[in-house]
Amino acid sequence: MPRKTRLDRVMRSAAALFAADGFAAASVSRLARLARVSKPGIYYHVRDKEELLFRICDDSMAGILAGARGAVAAADEPVARLRGVMRAHARFHWQHPNNLAILFGQMAYLSPERRRRIVVRERAYLDLVRGLIREGMRRRAFRRVDPSVAAFALFAMLNTLDAWYDPRGRLGPEALVRELERLYLDGLAAPGPPRAIARSDILGPRGRRDRRRCLR
Amino acid sequence: MPRKTRLDRVMRSAAALFAADGFAAASVSRLARLARVSKPGIYYHVRDKEELLFRICDDSMAGILAGARGAVAAADEPVARLRGVMRAHARFHWQHPNNLAILFGQMAYLSPERRRRIVVRERAYLDLVRGLIREGMRRRAFRRVDPSVAAFALFAMLNTLDAWYDPRGRLGPEALVRELERLYLDGLAAPGPPRAIARSDILGPRGRRDRRRCLR
Repeated sequence: MPRKTRLDRVMRSAAALFAADGFAAASVSRLARLARVSKPGIYYHVRDKEELLFRICDDSMAGILAGARGAVAAADEPVARLRGVMRAHARFHWQHPNNLAILFGQMAYLSPERRRRIVVRERAYLDLVRGLIREGMRRRAFRRVDPSVAAFALFAMLNTLDAWYDPRGRLGPEALVRELERLYLDGLAAPGPPRAIARSDILGPRGRRDRRRCLR
Repeated sequence: MPRKTRLDRVMRSAAALFAADGFAAASVSRLARLARVSKPGIYYHVRDKEELLFRICDDSMAGILAGARGAVAAADEPVARLRGVMRAHARFHWQHPNNLAILFGQMAYLSPERRRRIVVRERAYLDLVRGLIREGMRRRAFRRVDPSVAAFALFAMLNTLDAWYDPRGRLGPEALVRELERLYLDGLAAPGPPRAIARSDILGPRGRRDRRRCLR
């Protein structure tokens, strides 16, 4: 078996195992059985269990970031770019269904130095999304919002998908992403009715007569 | 020391410990030191570590649900009710900063029977929020959305607060909740410019003359 293929299988099995059992409880013996590789076969690729966790986190952030940069390059205005970023993030999740839960739940098990390297990529992603939101605000395509809160709210929806969404359910992945796009970009509140008429609007210089007309 | 006070301190310390170390790695000896209670003092209140986890999860869902029901009772239309639910959920988080992370990250350590009891409460909360969203749609206060997706998107924003928001930072809790309310209810996209003028709108029965007028 080519080493590349074997490593891929080890990485996918490690992601499934860490997501199911948690990093602390997962054993390399169990991983070896799951990946159908000998323990020395695993140690050929990585020094220890923590290196597997690091690679899962690092590959995940690299993949998400590459997807986001591709989405920015593929469109020329902030709404379409942000939509593309959302789609790329969701696509990464469908392709690596265990990775986001690990990335956002088990980073604490990494050494400080390795965690720092993941945080650098996370920061680049955060800056990219905040940059799109700021650009959208400058162009009046977006409302005035706090770009950091808006970016984290987006990540919250996308990074928790594995906890609340089953792609085999009634709503397919494409339909789900469209729902999230609409919800995030357009919000829940329906475009409001015309502003309630204020007393000062009603009682103009001509007094009661105008008032009746305005209320009709 | 009254037993109630001691139990409270044990519960708060257990929440801090489970959030920091994870349930699997947390030891009752460490908890005893943290809560300044003897180990027998802990076992006076609970049978084992899992019972502490169950009580944290159960009390949390009970508290969130009570807050949501209070918010529903305190307002008489779905937008205000949903806003109140968001505020109550966030308030619960400020008051119990470790609990949401445990509730949404460590339920897997509960026995199936205990997990089922938490899931019943979670389901009641989900149904309450979906019910508000459906009622809002019926009254045309909300857009047509998928109520389940909209509810989970809301929970995602609120349940991940501990991972991305520091109440001691530049944005206070009140300001943060207002930002989230605006983002969730109104969305990111600015109210659009008037619909682009279609060719059929421009070239009416009177031809070119109308076209110039419409484009001016």
